[in-house]
Amino acid sequence: MSQQQGIVTSGHKNILSEQDLALFDRWWRAANYLSVGQIYLLSNPLLREPLKLEHTKPRLLGHWGTTPGINFIWLHLNRLIKKSDQDILFIAGPGHGAPGVVASTWLEGTYSEYFPDITQDETGICRLFKQFSFPGGIPSHAAATTPGSIHEGGELGYSLSHAYGAAFDNPDLIVACVIGDGEAETGPLATSWHSNKFLDPVRDGAVLPILHLNGYKIANPTVLARIPHDELEALLRGYGHVPIFVEGDDPVLVHQAMAAAMDEAFRLIRSIQNEARSGGMAGAMPVWPVIVMKTPKGWTGPKTVDGLRTEGYWRSHQVPVSDLAKGDHLAILERWMRSYRPEELFDEAGRPHSDILALAPAGRKRMSASAHANGGLLRRPLRLPDFSQYGLDVSAPGQLVGESTRVLAVWLRDVMKANLDQANFRVLSPDENNSNRLNAVLDATNRAWEATRYDYDDHLAPDGRVMEILSEHTCQGWLEGYLLTGRHGLFSCYEAFVHIVDSMVNQHAKWLKTSKDVPWRQPISSLNYLITSHVWRQDHNGFSHQDPGFLDHVANKKGEISRIYLPPDANTLLCTADACLRARDTLNVIVAGKQPELQWLDMESAIAHCSKGLGIWDWASNDKGEIPDAVVACAGDVPTLEALAAVKLLREHIPDVKLRFVNVVDLMKLQLPEQHPHGLPDDIFDALFTTDRPVIFAFHGYPSLVHRLIYKRSNAVNFHVHGYQDEGTTTTPFDMTVLNELDRFHLVMNIVRRVPRLAVHAAYVQDAVSDKLVAHKRYIHMYGEDMPEIRDWTWS
Amino acid sequence: MSQQQGIVTSGHKNILSEQDLALFDRWWRAANYLSVGQIYLLSNPLLREPLKLEHTKPRLLGHWGTTPGINFIWLHLNRLIKKSDQDILFIAGPGHGAPGVVASTWLEGTYSEYFPDITQDETGICRLFKQFSFPGGIPSHAAATTPGSIHEGGELGYSLSHAYGAAFDNPDLIVACVIGDGEAETGPLATSWHSNKFLDPVRDGAVLPILHLNGYKIANPTVLARIPHDELEALLRGYGHVPIFVEGDDPVLVHQAMAAAMDEAFRLIRSIQNEARSGGMAGAMPVWPVIVMKTPKGWTGPKTVDGLRTEGYWRSHQVPVSDLAKGDHLAILERWMRSYRPEELFDEAGRPHSDILALAPAGRKRMSASAHANGGLLRRPLRLPDFSQYGLDVSAPGQLVGESTRVLAVWLRDVMKANLDQANFRVLSPDENNSNRLNAVLDATNRAWEATRYDYDDHLAPDGRVMEILSEHTCQGWLEGYLLTGRHGLFSCYEAFVHIVDSMVNQHAKWLKTSKDVPWRQPISSLNYLITSHVWRQDHNGFSHQDPGFLDHVANKKGEISRIYLPPDANTLLCTADACLRARDTLNVIVAGKQPELQWLDMESAIAHCSKGLGIWDWASNDKGEIPDAVVACAGDVPTLEALAAVKLLREHIPDVKLRFVNVVDLMKLQLPEQHPHGLPDDIFDALFTTDRPVIFAFHGYPSLVHRLIYKRSNAVNFHVHGYQDEGTTTTPFDMTVLNELDRFHLVMNIVRRVPRLAVHAAYVQDAVSDKLVAHKRYIHMYGEDMPEIRDWTWS
Repeated sequence: MSQQQGIVTSGHKNILSEQDLALFDRWWRAANYLSVGQIYLLSNPLLREPLKLEHTKPRLLGHWGTTPGINFIWLHLNRLIKKSDQDILFIAGPGHGAPGVVASTWLEGTYSEYFPDITQDETGICRLFKQFSFPGGIPSHAAATTPGSIHEGGELGYSLSHAYGAAFDNPDLIVACVIGDGEAETGPLATSWHSNKFLDPVRDGAVLPILHLNGYKIANPTVLARIPHDELEALLRGYGHVPIFVEGDDPVLVHQAMAAAMDEAFRLIRSIQNEARSGGMAGAMPVWPVIVMKTPKGWTGPKTVDGLRTEGYWRSHQVPVSDLAKGDHLAILERWMRSYRPEELFDEAGRPHSDILALAPAGRKRMSASAHANGGLLRRPLRLPDFSQYGLDVSAPGQLVGESTRVLAVWLRDVMKANLDQANFRVLSPDENNSNRLNAVLDATNRAWEATRYDYDDHLAPDGRVMEILSEHTCQGWLEGYLLTGRHGLFSCYEAFVHIVDSMVNQHAKWLKTSKDVPWRQPISSLNYLITSHVWRQDHNGFSHQDPGFLDHVANKKGEISRIYLPPDANTLLCTADACLRARDTLNVIVAGKQPELQWLDMESAIAHCSKGLGIWDWASNDKGEIPDAVVACAGDVPTLEALAAVKLLREHIPDVKLRFVNVVDLMKLQLPEQHPHGLPDDIFDALFTTDRPVIFAFHGYPSLVHRLIYKRSNAVNFHVHGYQDEGTTTTPFDMTVLNELDRFHLVMNIVRRVPRLAVHAAYVQDAVSDKLVAHKRYIHMYGEDMPEIRDWTWS
Repeated sequence: MSQQQGIVTSGHKNILSEQDLALFDRWWRAANYLSVGQIYLLSNPLLREPLKLEHTKPRLLGHWGTTPGINFIWLHLNRLIKKSDQDILFIAGPGHGAPGVVASTWLEGTYSEYFPDITQDETGICRLFKQFSFPGGIPSHAAATTPGSIHEGGELGYSLSHAYGAAFDNPDLIVACVIGDGEAETGPLATSWHSNKFLDPVRDGAVLPILHLNGYKIANPTVLARIPHDELEALLRGYGHVPIFVEGDDPVLVHQAMAAAMDEAFRLIRSIQNEARSGGMAGAMPVWPVIVMKTPKGWTGPKTVDGLRTEGYWRSHQVPVSDLAKGDHLAILERWMRSYRPEELFDEAGRPHSDILALAPAGRKRMSASAHANGGLLRRPLRLPDFSQYGLDVSAPGQLVGESTRVLAVWLRDVMKANLDQANFRVLSPDENNSNRLNAVLDATNRAWEATRYDYDDHLAPDGRVMEILSEHTCQGWLEGYLLTGRHGLFSCYEAFVHIVDSMVNQHAKWLKTSKDVPWRQPISSLNYLITSHVWRQDHNGFSHQDPGFLDHVANKKGEISRIYLPPDANTLLCTADACLRARDTLNVIVAGKQPELQWLDMESAIAHCSKGLGIWDWASNDKGEIPDAVVACAGDVPTLEALAAVKLLREHIPDVKLRFVNVVDLMKLQLPEQHPHGLPDDIFDALFTTDRPVIFAFHGYPSLVHRLIYKRSNAVNFHVHGYQDEGTTTTPFDMTVLNELDRFHLVMNIVRRVPRLAVHAAYVQDAVSDKLVAHKRYIHMYGEDMPEIRDWTWS
């Protein structure tokens, strides 16, 4: 293969016979016809009579622009499958090209198998057309309802990272990933090209990116279509690929070129795999092929509408000819649809002719029927070692110091080991695995690294299962692709920077929600976040690293999807992580500290506490089953510490105060059962939090999150939540809590203020507490670290 | 210039004389010494006595790895400035290299001018050292407190888009942008290289990217440092740059190479500009230089610590030698610091020797003192045409149909025109300008486009002021850079996809908040979002395009920063937009529809309504100043429509019902004054919403947002909020509201349910409403559009 110059296959000839060409043209015309029909027609699906306005949809919704290209590529991938018996998974980056994906899957018969109403005849075609972008029908983008799809393509940027996620640990699979040139401008897509540095040709499958340059977005040209050819080629080579160019607008020539390109790409892939798998690559990073297909936007559509350039222009992006009552629009549509000569493609019953159908592969070889696209079918549960054997030996609360995530890491190491032969578990992070104290996992595996390695490198290997690239987007995309194809993973991330994938979280949540309503979709593993290096212990990195708002973001998702856990110590973290790695079809967010911190619960108590999700800590309470003066509640490791310190302080000052201490691990317990499946019934909630006593709540995140979770509770008005107030900087750990009034002293002041019978103590406590805060500030400004009485504080 | 091969300047010699070299080495040693001192020392700043543990900080915080490289680059940029009198703005992508930026700005004298306590003598050095990463001092990253900085660099990925934003409309400026090879892996950075397709060499300044390849991140190698040299070169050429390579670890050789690289880069920039500005480029896209500096991470730091590789390895990332009480660590630190020979660099008073100081440019030519880095200094208010002349002629509420954003666009067109000569206004969007109905702006300017153009292109020109790339990250980054350097802009975005920049919004909000506490920072223009193509009218694009959660995200920011406006029609939108384009130092989010919709307020009423931010619409109320049965409130265009339809419907069914109608434009009015500067005092709030009547609130976003804004209000428990419940698909506009129970029928049912005296009507209303909903579903499933009585509904 040439390293110096892209391969242009446009010159190749004779790969396809005349007969092949004729057949290919028939399939493509059928797919294009069915695509246009979905966008436009309500009836008269095969144009058996002249087209009238009443045959068309009142609202014309859909995207034609990318569709003929998708149909073209699908057809040529089918040729490859039939020729080579290769397993291929299809990813449509331009997911709004759904009319094409749906048409192709219908031609393969899968659509009718999954949706028996949509038969392969005229009635079925009519339903296929009507349902598209129609109320009660299917959405206008590839979606969970689309056979063969693991990718929405509504929000652009994630096709290629999804493709790599699907290819990992699937050595026999090629993931063909169509990337639109619009999508290619997004940041997440632009960096995901580098995923090839993390794919092992021995252990993993291959990704075949197909950059679909049709030149336009909604109303603009695309960058990659308007740079010089040698720049584009350099860019793709710079990404570590050898480009194969397929260009043109004459279908016959482009069919030949694409067939040659597919053959060449497949040959290169096989050659890399064969060489690597026979031990021949010895450290060299393979240069994988990429196909660049440059064809007109809206290819075969109307050349002009109202005298305006349409085919090969952005006006083809959505509905090229609309307002069908106007001028010659209806005639344009009819002429366009008849240009595919439907009468040659479908028989009397409306079934595609058998020569067309015969172009599709059979059974699971059909991309539309790939089991990888319905990952739950392939999912095997993880083998999980008994987490209770990995805990810290906590003989009494608040004496022992431990690093929660470091404890978790030892269990994760053994999870990794126990599933090495299943090859279905990966741990991902944006260059933070060790920073997040998960180093132990590297005793069981390495970091994946296909690029240059030196002998002094630390745990880098092509077949590592720890995935680290400094791109939260890529980590998230890889993991989504991996989960959607039936595997398991854990994504550890600095809390502030997990916001980078907010929008990806939205899209994955939408996918999960929609999937639950698709009967043939099987549940997949939950997406597990370990949020650490959190807001309260980024005192060294400062304000930019301090933000707990991801919890708010996830709490907005449907109750059936969202899970938020705030284990206060190592044993509760283990217990939570075990549950999360067993879960399916949810987003699980675990917030846990990585810094040395006091431990509270022995393993037995931790299991009991986590199984309830929240509960009274008797050893920290002195209400003895009576109605307390106040409830002190908390969620999160640092808030738990401060709340306990406040309780101790207050009881020292006012021995007869009666306090109940409640710790919350499963935040969604706070909601009502009708809002969230974990929600506590009102009677239990009221029994814990009372109906009339002040609840001083020390919370990890923004206080408003607690308020909005509990606003329907009878005692809502008495909740006083301390949490993050967007105050931060580089300072000491304790000072971070002081800046946000989450510290023990502010908690004590608030308790005294809220309990009427403590009013007599208010002035005294206020003075004592103010003195402490002044002393604290003076100390840290002098010494740069917290006072010994803070640093060395223990519960006893 | 060679187009075929990157320029390697390592071979160049003799650019710098021996004397230059000696001087440069002295500056660099001084900057490095001052950097290390900031990380480590509390006292004994010039090592006048042997180093002892008590001279060092108890907590060692900071990042050494990138710092010597930053110091090196700064010095060479200064050489260029002195030589050419060029204005240069410095952007430190690796913002955690703040010890270097701070050291360099201190050597230039600016630091002492801005912070008079930090003098250029031993006392000042001592304070400089202590304050770094110290409580009450400065953060560990470049920040608003850092002279010469417009960029934090805590969350990575935005340096290059910031640089372009700063360079736009600053033809005499070069923005030198250091990009770390860690940051280069992020998606936002990876695509922002393509910003060069949007920079006009005639009208704009230049960006000089300096890719700082030191090879490592926190605990991993970097991708770009571990791919073959020809791949890296191809990548940069693919990005449209000519790379100039500077590689090595011998400072003398690297000084020579860097001086040559800077000269060559400057020559290329000038040559492009001269050619373009003399009209010589005629459509060719310039190929700008990029410098690649490949030097060891932690250069000049300890080679090994505890026998482990440190210099040139990831162990240099933060604090290369810590735990100073251990073994030879203190000695390593002392040896390291003394290797810079501070006694040769500082005089008896601790002032740097004058030959060193003389290397700095003077006055505003110092990068640390650039006015562009304190954009408020340069900011000129926009000239704003009288918006009230652009409104729709609304003779009665709810009769006229208009497209709000299309109306706004005409005013924006004239804003654009009025400021063309000031060259300080841009409109940005991710390929959505026309989709968002802002087409009219293109009558005053074009879309910026430097790449290939064809005669059939639509409003593309190198000097366009509409900026469209399909990357929300890049749009946001450009705009931030543009605002931070004293200009104005508007970012229009689909609502669901503005989440893509959630984390960038966080970081900009943090910057604004911090800036307010920096006395020498002048206010900059607010960041204005026009959120349109919103959740309720993405019925055609479906679920992936439906998400109103950005409001929740922004509402979490400090009250002094966050503004959220939901103008219900065109005239209120104009009024709101005018206020936003005048505002400073805030994030302004305007949510407005683009679809044809009923108009409510004439211009006079719109101005009165917006000036209050919320208020009773008398024409829709019938409580006649008495206590109503219920308050019907709303915020957002679609909710306003549904709430009004509900009021009308209910009054038809139950003529004696007494309803008050409240519309909210300025959402933050709902908070208390102590939570938000716009917050309504309780008495006014209670007068509007009563203290005991049910408030049925139709809200644009998630209902919980309203609940958390009003939870402290006395009537909070009676608020019943209808809004987005994460239900969506491709359907009709009205059906979207039905799916989420925001529609008129669900509102009517809830009002009846909440008003005790209406109980007698409940069964009847319930039946009527259920019939309507059934009819609605039947109709849309048959016809694919809403019933005529819904589509054609008007107020009257």
